Amino acid sequence: MDNYKAPIRDLQFNIFELFGYDRHYQDLPGYGDVNAEIINAILNEFDKFCSNILSPLNAVGDQEGCQWHDGEVTTPGGFREAYQQYVEGGWPALAHDPAYGGQGLPESLSLILAEMRGTANWAWGMYPGLSHGAVNTLKHHGTDSQKSHYLSKLVEGSWTGTMCLTEAHCGTDLGLLRTKAEPNADGSYSVTGTKIFISSGEHDLTENIVHIVLARLPDAPVGVKGISLFIIPKFDVLEDGSLGDRNGVRCGSIEHKMGIHGNATCVMNFDNAKAYLLGEPNQGLQAMFTFMNTARIGTAMQGIGHMELGYQKSLAYAKDRLQMRSVTGPKNPDGPADPIIVHPDVRRMLLTQKALLEGGRMMLCYTGKFVDVIDHAADPEQRKAAEDMLSFMTPIAKAFLTETGFESANLALQCFGGHGYIQEWGVEQNVRDARIAMIYEGTTGIQALDFIGRKVLGSGGELLKNFTREVHQFCKAHADDEAMQEFVIPLQALNKKWGDLTLHIGTKAMENADEAGAASVDYLMFSGYACLAYFWARAVATAQAAIAGGSSEAEFYEAKLATARFYFQRILPRTNVCEQGILSGADNLMSLSEAAF
Amino acid sequence: MDNYKAPIRDLQFNIFELFGYDRHYQDLPGYGDVNAEIINAILNEFDKFCSNILSPLNAVGDQEGCQWHDGEVTTPGGFREAYQQYVEGGWPALAHDPAYGGQGLPESLSLILAEMRGTANWAWGMYPGLSHGAVNTLKHHGTDSQKSHYLSKLVEGSWTGTMCLTEAHCGTDLGLLRTKAEPNADGSYSVTGTKIFISSGEHDLTENIVHIVLARLPDAPVGVKGISLFIIPKFDVLEDGSLGDRNGVRCGSIEHKMGIHGNATCVMNFDNAKAYLLGEPNQGLQAMFTFMNTARIGTAMQGIGHMELGYQKSLAYAKDRLQMRSVTGPKNPDGPADPIIVHPDVRRMLLTQKALLEGGRMMLCYTGKFVDVIDHAADPEQRKAAEDMLSFMTPIAKAFLTETGFESANLALQCFGGHGYIQEWGVEQNVRDARIAMIYEGTTGIQALDFIGRKVLGSGGELLKNFTREVHQFCKAHADDEAMQEFVIPLQALNKKWGDLTLHIGTKAMENADEAGAASVDYLMFSGYACLAYFWARAVATAQAAIAGGSSEAEFYEAKLATARFYFQRILPRTNVCEQGILSGADNLMSLSEAAF
Repeated sequence: MDNYKAPIRDLQFNIFELFGYDRHYQDLPGYGDVNAEIINAILNEFDKFCSNILSPLNAVGDQEGCQWHDGEVTTPGGFREAYQQYVEGGWPALAHDPAYGGQGLPESLSLILAEMRGTANWAWGMYPGLSHGAVNTLKHHGTDSQKSHYLSKLVEGSWTGTMCLTEAHCGTDLGLLRTKAEPNADGSYSVTGTKIFISSGEHDLTENIVHIVLARLPDAPVGVKGISLFIIPKFDVLEDGSLGDRNGVRCGSIEHKMGIHGNATCVMNFDNAKAYLLGEPNQGLQAMFTFMNTARIGTAMQGIGHMELGYQKSLAYAKDRLQMRSVTGPKNPDGPADPIIVHPDVRRMLLTQKALLEGGRMMLCYTGKFVDVIDHAADPEQRKAAEDMLSFMTPIAKAFLTETGFESANLALQCFGGHGYIQEWGVEQNVRDARIAMIYEGTTGIQALDFIGRKVLGSGGELLKNFTREVHQFCKAHADDEAMQEFVIPLQALNKKWGDLTLHIGTKAMENADEAGAASVDYLMFSGYACLAYFWARAVATAQAAIAGGSSEAEFYEAKLATARFYFQRILPRTNVCEQGILSGADNLMSLSEAAF
Repeated sequence: MDNYKAPIRDLQFNIFELFGYDRHYQDLPGYGDVNAEIINAILNEFDKFCSNILSPLNAVGDQEGCQWHDGEVTTPGGFREAYQQYVEGGWPALAHDPAYGGQGLPESLSLILAEMRGTANWAWGMYPGLSHGAVNTLKHHGTDSQKSHYLSKLVEGSWTGTMCLTEAHCGTDLGLLRTKAEPNADGSYSVTGTKIFISSGEHDLTENIVHIVLARLPDAPVGVKGISLFIIPKFDVLEDGSLGDRNGVRCGSIEHKMGIHGNATCVMNFDNAKAYLLGEPNQGLQAMFTFMNTARIGTAMQGIGHMELGYQKSLAYAKDRLQMRSVTGPKNPDGPADPIIVHPDVRRMLLTQKALLEGGRMMLCYTGKFVDVIDHAADPEQRKAAEDMLSFMTPIAKAFLTETGFESANLALQCFGGHGYIQEWGVEQNVRDARIAMIYEGTTGIQALDFIGRKVLGSGGELLKNFTREVHQFCKAHADDEAMQEFVIPLQALNKKWGDLTLHIGTKAMENADEAGAASVDYLMFSGYACLAYFWARAVATAQAAIAGGSSEAEFYEAKLATARFYFQRILPRTNVCEQGILSGADNLMSLSEAAF
């Protein structure tokens, strides 16, 4: 099986042509020297690492899995060496603050690389991926001393970080958590409790692991208002930065999971573990959102990764596998049969993947810019606008791209027929790996409640209007462009319907609070399809301009037009189902008694 | 984890109230004594076997898998003992001809039991399941001597049968197959070639295995017209019925698959294997359709099995798992949180499963009757009508119920959150096991081509009209029933649209042969949703009559009404997407050049 190759041309289309990252960087303090040449050099260099080193280890990770022995975890063969190369290449430090040894490149560029890393080998990528979130949390909430102790090691990749939230009886409902932190005389704390589902909780890649843990102080208020955040290193860190004693945190076991076998999902037992308060007491959940937002965008990217991997594999197979003749006459008359890509339904499966994948990639490339602005723009209003937009896009991206990611991964498998069901081609692994993305970092249902409740209705519709206004302006700008009408007219109608449905839900939810939940997933998916319609229309405008300008890559741009047309004609009608679901109301869900189910 | 329990009450609703199996049997020669008492006794007895014996082995089968050593296959621990109990209980013989030791019960009843067996343990059930198809093929195409040699052993379950079609380079396109059969002087043949993906091809459950194998005679015409069918026993069968020499057929390896680990998927090497021609030379593919039709309905049932298992597990979990409060106020005020079944979106996931599951069960219960009529009705016209209807329903049932089966299994997993992704609860196994059903016995795409091409357009629309006429008559019969209008009006509209879309596709396909393929899967799925709308409307009529009649089980019947309403309001709008896909035509699939993908 061929290794993954990064879709460099499509990434460049997004980065430069559609979203103007080079100009965007030049407008932001500190990024002025990040030009196209640097970006392209980084993409090409990282592609080599991903395709040559990470991609061959993807199947190894699945088949060997992680091994637990007496509290220690051994990662699959080759994972450790690949991690060393990753650190030697300076990749963990790419988008971090130079004050802590980072290279100071933009977060949006790091996100592009995360797609490449995750497509090549998602389970492996979770080790540095979670670490990236831990760095951001420490940077935002740590004291100077905490930063100096932990950040440089995490940034260079000598240590990794984790995020310890879930307990057996609480995942979504963190207010129920029981892990206790008792103050010690020296200002540190002793933490006791058991956390489950801790990704990368224990491993053999680095000499130390820094856990960021949610726990309760004595006499903390009940519920989510009594949660504090703690730093708990596997090995204590002494004043001079060297490693001290082994701390009272041990991996009790690792889970047997459907997929992502190469990443250790750990039960972590904290037994009077020495801990350091991170941020203010009882403010832990808010602080954790820094971590969770990073993780949610990262998980959205997982959807793209599985789409890309599945698409590459199924496209290659569809061109290679000979089976039956085209009904319009042989296309490969010298062979025993035609390649299956001649069959309309195989093309439907490939184009569905392509439209969701490339559209989803646009969504994340669009979203990544806001992270840069939040981090680096001088103007507070600009930062606030970017925060609003990121906050709006995050639940859509997380839920919509992981749902469609799983759909795409399954279509890729389907293109292989029976061969897809066996281990050999890696497409069944891709499906199994993709399945978790709709669950962790908040399920689709939780994202949908966050979206309709906190983001849209919670802002009085403002966050939505920011986006629909942009869509409207795009439509207006192309109102006289004949060739754009097949996209602009339905997009404009959809944009209006989006507002109407929001008003409808808001009104009904005032009468019955269950109405928002009953509409939530349909509303989020509607929003996802509407966003992709906007991005595909933008792609069309860009592609048409390139063709009109006499581009030598006409085939590439024509494919954008054809894929956009496919999206509008065959995918976008799904918004009708979402609309009907929303309008049908809560009664059809709530009227059945629990006993009658 | 609790064992599976058969949904006896729902089965009875279908069998007696909705589809009148008891009256149906009384009208068929040979089944006059199959009354409600006998049916209920069989259901209850088989439930005990399924829940106590098969269900606990489902996880064992997944975790241990089959082991291959030097051509021999060991099934997971307990499989062999369970099979012995199955044989001792007389279950393999249930629906077979008394002339060969069968109990002569109707095939439709056997299908109900296949749901129970398959839900409890699909991988185990494939051993007797494939055998059942082999019996039917031998019965229809074997000589008297072949029947006397093989049937009684297969019927009693001392031997099992397989179906050997696929080769590495051909699955769908059997015309390409290369396995060769050379005639021997004694009238037998020597078969040489390699078959792959042979379910139950080798195992330790029985003393002999009877392979039914597709191969080519010397000088056979190329393509599908040159395929003949052969019986190849693992141990040759002597004139007196005793076992002779070990034949030249060996299992070269077993596949590492995504799921159904408890069933051995074998590479079978035939090396001058002694073979007996079954049926006429070069008529093998037609004869194999007997086997495939049985297998396709069996695979449709697999969809139901995974829906039922997932629904049972996720419903129990949703009632038990406490997480967050209902937004309309606590429903479990004495506990730390409410059970998650209070949340609207969890109910949406449960009701989607319930509506597809119970509707799908109706579809197969409806379909099963035609098999009885074909086998036993005296009137040739009645048999022909049943054959037409079975032929129409088979691709819908196979593709639609396996697609929705996979969807349902995934929704069940989703209800568990992170806990669903780990092995412990069995819901991730259920997803992995369900995934193959959309592929084997003809993928969804192949079923869709068979449906639109051979069944609907191939009959000049007659097979469809037989069904839509029945729907129309139902709607007419309930035209004055006020309480039925919320179902009858949309059903009538859908029925008309079904015809219109068929005409549209037929017309366009005359201009461009790719149009049928481009519409095929959307058309099949449209048909599936339309069928379920009809069955749900029938269930409503039956439930309303029971409630009006003062039934003491009002809660059961009210649940049918509520689930039907959910289906019409939240699932049926999916037909709009199918319609738009069909109307969008083939251009959006075919215009992109292969290189531009």
